[in-house]
Amino acid sequence: MAEKKLVEAITSMEEDFAQWYTDVVKKAELIDYTSVKGCMAIKPEGYAIWELIQGQMDAMFKATGVKNMYLPMFIPESLLQMEKDHVEGFAPEVAWVTHGGLNPLTERMCVRPTSETLFCDYYKGVVHSYRDLPQVCNQWCSVVRWEKETRPFLRSREFLWQEGHTAHATAEEAEERTIQMLNVYADFLENVLAIPVVKGQKTEKEKFAGAEATYTVETLMHDGKALQSATSHNFGDGFAKAFGIQYTDKDNTLKYVHQTSWGSTTRMIGAIIMVHGDNSGLKLPPRVAPTQVVIIPIQQKKDGVLDKAYEIEKALKEAGVRVRTDDTDKSPGFKFAEQEMRGVPLRIEIGPRDIEAGKCVIGRRDNGEKIEAAITDVASNVKELLDTVQKDMLEAARVHRDEHTYVAKDMAEFEKCFNEKSGFVKAMWCEDRACEDKIKENLAVTSRCMPFEQETLSDKCVCCGRPAKKMVYWGKAY
Amino acid sequence: MAEKKLVEAITSMEEDFAQWYTDVVKKAELIDYTSVKGCMAIKPEGYAIWELIQGQMDAMFKATGVKNMYLPMFIPESLLQMEKDHVEGFAPEVAWVTHGGLNPLTERMCVRPTSETLFCDYYKGVVHSYRDLPQVCNQWCSVVRWEKETRPFLRSREFLWQEGHTAHATAEEAEERTIQMLNVYADFLENVLAIPVVKGQKTEKEKFAGAEATYTVETLMHDGKALQSATSHNFGDGFAKAFGIQYTDKDNTLKYVHQTSWGSTTRMIGAIIMVHGDNSGLKLPPRVAPTQVVIIPIQQKKDGVLDKAYEIEKALKEAGVRVRTDDTDKSPGFKFAEQEMRGVPLRIEIGPRDIEAGKCVIGRRDNGEKIEAAITDVASNVKELLDTVQKDMLEAARVHRDEHTYVAKDMAEFEKCFNEKSGFVKAMWCEDRACEDKIKENLAVTSRCMPFEQETLSDKCVCCGRPAKKMVYWGKAY
Repeated sequence: MAEKKLVEAITSMEEDFAQWYTDVVKKAELIDYTSVKGCMAIKPEGYAIWELIQGQMDAMFKATGVKNMYLPMFIPESLLQMEKDHVEGFAPEVAWVTHGGLNPLTERMCVRPTSETLFCDYYKGVVHSYRDLPQVCNQWCSVVRWEKETRPFLRSREFLWQEGHTAHATAEEAEERTIQMLNVYADFLENVLAIPVVKGQKTEKEKFAGAEATYTVETLMHDGKALQSATSHNFGDGFAKAFGIQYTDKDNTLKYVHQTSWGSTTRMIGAIIMVHGDNSGLKLPPRVAPTQVVIIPIQQKKDGVLDKAYEIEKALKEAGVRVRTDDTDKSPGFKFAEQEMRGVPLRIEIGPRDIEAGKCVIGRRDNGEKIEAAITDVASNVKELLDTVQKDMLEAARVHRDEHTYVAKDMAEFEKCFNEKSGFVKAMWCEDRACEDKIKENLAVTSRCMPFEQETLSDKCVCCGRPAKKMVYWGKAY
Repeated sequence: MAEKKLVEAITSMEEDFAQWYTDVVKKAELIDYTSVKGCMAIKPEGYAIWELIQGQMDAMFKATGVKNMYLPMFIPESLLQMEKDHVEGFAPEVAWVTHGGLNPLTERMCVRPTSETLFCDYYKGVVHSYRDLPQVCNQWCSVVRWEKETRPFLRSREFLWQEGHTAHATAEEAEERTIQMLNVYADFLENVLAIPVVKGQKTEKEKFAGAEATYTVETLMHDGKALQSATSHNFGDGFAKAFGIQYTDKDNTLKYVHQTSWGSTTRMIGAIIMVHGDNSGLKLPPRVAPTQVVIIPIQQKKDGVLDKAYEIEKALKEAGVRVRTDDTDKSPGFKFAEQEMRGVPLRIEIGPRDIEAGKCVIGRRDNGEKIEAAITDVASNVKELLDTVQKDMLEAARVHRDEHTYVAKDMAEFEKCFNEKSGFVKAMWCEDRACEDKIKENLAVTSRCMPFEQETLSDKCVCCGRPAKKMVYWGKAY
């Protein structure tokens, strides 16, 4: 049976999660490998998800006053070197352009791995007075980091992202914007991607190269591994001092600006796959599903079946639903399996007997439930169900996350958590880098964040036993 | 006076068109120069125009079945070399990446100057059967061409564009798609950008590297120079043969696909400036104006003036108009000049006396006309006026284009046209490359296109006097 073959084509997640992931990415036609080592082709089905992410996130950005713009993809070496920590963090992993046309360049340039230095150079030119502040800009583009090991969506040499860069008059305003954008990401991940997050601050060890503070939204994948899903950085006036970005304040004195940056990438698509997917394939939250409903006619050659399917399609389109009818000559069973693989949230089955009874069957991808609906009411039913699916998917992910969040009070418990289980582990920490290093070395886990919602699990550091200062989420990370 | 200073800040177009252009681009805050030689920063005001272009063009693409996707920005040298004409056309002007991180690459890669080779490589992998055809994909991205001389929007080393790439079962289908997309561009330029076009085919000399046929939409700038505004190429099966892209047809035989590509770039923003602008600055067609209406309160400190301005703003927003109120403490005169510079299509003046009379004054940027409107009817008046302005701007550009399109029947007339006038010159051609070369050498003009609407101006080639085969549009081009 064709449908069986299609389903057999993916490895089960229990058997080999990494292979399951790769299979889903390929079989749902999200990505293709290319002749360019470490770079991926984002196929139309995958890119359509990214467009829905972009559209909705961009609207949320703009509601907070963000303006889009575009800066060059190249950074001259001297510009990259302006901020010491930043160049140390990025120089080892950039791609270098050395020739333009037939001639060697007088100064080599890297392809942007991130654009702090370019935005600093730009702001230096446009910011003169307090009237020019704040500057709250964003760009949607691709960046390049020369990774050795790559995985579709999660890590590739080139990836798509957005990077916001702001400049403010005061440190307080910069901190406020940093947190504001972290909250936008949290809201977006939870309410658009149906992925619950842990919001918190990165440790000194894990923060962004050149930042004073890095905030993160951490999410938990189905295999218990953590994924850093978006970050927001407060740079203080470090970059401003390195680049000389000053403004004349109301009191007529020259002051340095305070800056932030914040980014999120196509790896969010990886998160959608690994948080929601199952052994039948992808499961897309309705708000980012390019097709929200697929109509599958049963006995479609019979008189009136296809007409009724198109009639339903028309009604749904008019109600603003992204819908299509699968009127190909494949069997209904194959179509079911194919739409499950692609993660379409709702499926409508309509055959001669349904038409006679004036009803159709709506099947949910998220939990397999089947609902009967009168054909005349199908649009309102579908709209309501899409909202329900969206909420239920978030709730299911939250339950999974909570069930896979453990507590460790000493190293024995800590070790047991990662040996016998997989998930987030909450544990106390003394704030000494040495303990963080030791934990990473011994357990191969990293601090994910110091969550904003702190708890006191014990008064001792899980590693050294000295007084604890912070509760930290730890995990194995993608 | 501040407003006088603002207007004086731009050179008049009659005095120095190139300087006028640069001044407008800078003063309207569309673009900034950067530390990256030959690359521009597209500032928020400029990028907002690009977003409106993207949104509307993308919707037109999708209505014809186009799907967006994303391919890598790098092309390994061996891939670029697969098609002989193509590599000859582009290799001299690409940027080369030679190092990834700290190590030299085993094979250098260029940053894409265009992505035919990448799409061929991709289609080779996904096209197997006639069922996989057609493939109709597009990507929005930036490309790099190592130009020696650059000008904002018109020519820069990196620019933003869209590039569509398709693969078809037959030559007829490929030709149909090539023309279909040219028509989309023509429709877009005329109805969204209010720029009339001449549609036609490029000569062999001017066609795209690797194409069988290149079609173009040519537009005329205010200074009489031509701008190639978008192109659509039919590749036949040349690339398919070079890359081995074959499919099994219904009759079970292996066949090569037929391909097309079509592109348009941020230079369209340059066209908007140079077709519509005047000595007060930019003039934006309403459909691509980030702000369509600016409300300028008169005596805004007087009781009720700002409230009324906000009330009008609210009514316009609810009607779907992109509107903002300039409630800064600048003088009304300065605000007028500033909004003229930025090209805002409509301005609403509202002061105490207007409020008393229950009316306001709507000023048109395109022709300076002032219209009185009842405050209660302002939304419907504005909506109608925006449509009128859009149409009138196209009409004005069409009149200018037609008034600057000349006919030459022999070399003396031809020379006179370019020495004494500036614009398109229609002239007959024998189809011999030698004549085209000679005309370029002697008059520094190029063939813009062989228009679809052919006329017989005489039966002799304008250059050699031998029998003419085609009427050609000639011009000095950007």
